[in-house]
Amino acid sequence: MADLGTGEIYTIAIAGSGKLASKLLQALQQNNLNIDFLWGRNGVTLQELAKSSNAQVVEKEFLTQIQSPCIVFLCVPDAALQDVIEMFSGNKNLLLIQMSGSIPRIQTLGHQAETAVFYPLMTFTKDRDVNWKLIPVFLETDNANTSLLLEKLAMQLGNTCRYMNAENRKSLHLAAVFANNFVNHSLAIAYKICAEGNLDFALLKPLVEETISKAFETNPALVQTGPAVRQDWPVINEHIRFLSSSEYFRNVYEANTHSIQNINI
Amino acid sequence: MADLGTGEIYTIAIAGSGKLASKLLQALQQNNLNIDFLWGRNGVTLQELAKSSNAQVVEKEFLTQIQSPCIVFLCVPDAALQDVIEMFSGNKNLLLIQMSGSIPRIQTLGHQAETAVFYPLMTFTKDRDVNWKLIPVFLETDNANTSLLLEKLAMQLGNTCRYMNAENRKSLHLAAVFANNFVNHSLAIAYKICAEGNLDFALLKPLVEETISKAFETNPALVQTGPAVRQDWPVINEHIRFLSSSEYFRNVYEANTHSIQNINI
Repeated sequence: MADLGTGEIYTIAIAGSGKLASKLLQALQQNNLNIDFLWGRNGVTLQELAKSSNAQVVEKEFLTQIQSPCIVFLCVPDAALQDVIEMFSGNKNLLLIQMSGSIPRIQTLGHQAETAVFYPLMTFTKDRDVNWKLIPVFLETDNANTSLLLEKLAMQLGNTCRYMNAENRKSLHLAAVFANNFVNHSLAIAYKICAEGNLDFALLKPLVEETISKAFETNPALVQTGPAVRQDWPVINEHIRFLSSSEYFRNVYEANTHSIQNINI
Repeated sequence: MADLGTGEIYTIAIAGSGKLASKLLQALQQNNLNIDFLWGRNGVTLQELAKSSNAQVVEKEFLTQIQSPCIVFLCVPDAALQDVIEMFSGNKNLLLIQMSGSIPRIQTLGHQAETAVFYPLMTFTKDRDVNWKLIPVFLETDNANTSLLLEKLAMQLGNTCRYMNAENRKSLHLAAVFANNFVNHSLAIAYKICAEGNLDFALLKPLVEETISKAFETNPALVQTGPAVRQDWPVINEHIRFLSSSEYFRNVYEANTHSIQNINI
């Protein structure tokens, strides 16, 4: 239950029981926002999550029929979002919060559940704590009361927040795929090359930390180094030969090399 | 001039005047190793470097004829290394230090200049200080006296050092291309997507820092997240559509996506 100072007391539910659900639950609890209900499709992980909280696992009918204001955080896969929102949209007491960067806010008709977006820009991992206060959060709503509620929620969790429309959120999400997923994959390839040469991957840590620190002080394209930007073809060709047994890694190498050589700064 | 406690006093020269030369000069000076001579092909940057030190700019004949032991750090492009070593190899008073990861140690004949490798695994940038003490350094020599000298040198600069043969150095250098150059380029693409959407690139910093911190606690492939590893094709196809006007970025996206989906962990 939460009194966020908006003049209304809300119960809080989380839909889903994956990494995001688990980290959000933890953050809410740590900031004195008690989770009342958990709903989801995976009974096993749902029970695990219930154990780490006072929350009650409920059936979908419980939420579709609840008679008091209830915030439902939708920590479900993007592909399931439309179905879950449709499932709950008949109950006007529900505020359905989308947590996703890549999906536009799903509109419901009047006199139905309201939808809003609360998108935390972060990567979440099981068994790994993350400092919620450092996470920027992006909001979308067309209701002034809900604005106030979302802002109070972000404030209570310690997040900086700002409003962002679906189009910009999609851009930001794509940027995050490069900055997080593809950065991680480059490191995964580096790890594998090190492992095959019996080299300690940790040797690369100071280099990577310097790379990141430097990149955020400027436009990273301006500080690009390495054989690609130097057009150092003997080294590039040697690397491509080295990667000849791994088609996928070689493609990543070639795509990056050509892109580095052709980026418009 | 340097007395590194090896029983021999050396003069010190730097060949080259680029980023590595400038950062090495700074690190040597800060650690009480005075640079005596500078030689290079670019008169302008060489004079700049001379101004920031007590070093004297010399002609190549000065070094080819020097009569006392002299360490020459070869901060020249990989492509020029063979030529520069040949140029100086006639003088047995010279210890020619290769600073490169991707080039095997170039052997010289007996009674000639000696070559050794002192490879600092780091990315260097003009106008940006780097903490030399955090840089791991990789050594190669076949001479016990030179071993001692290289180790004393690393110790004086504060670097951890270890011996590594050319093959392993090449693997490490390729791993560094992924971990530094391609990580930076992923960030450069993220920057450009943000800029086009009028979004602040700095919003991604907490996410990237978490990505890096996580990656070095495990095999990064084990903590891969995002649409590629989730096989979330609606989102992937939407991203590819978004990137349709940029062939090079789209190729990086597709190569990473396929590689993430096919990596053997």
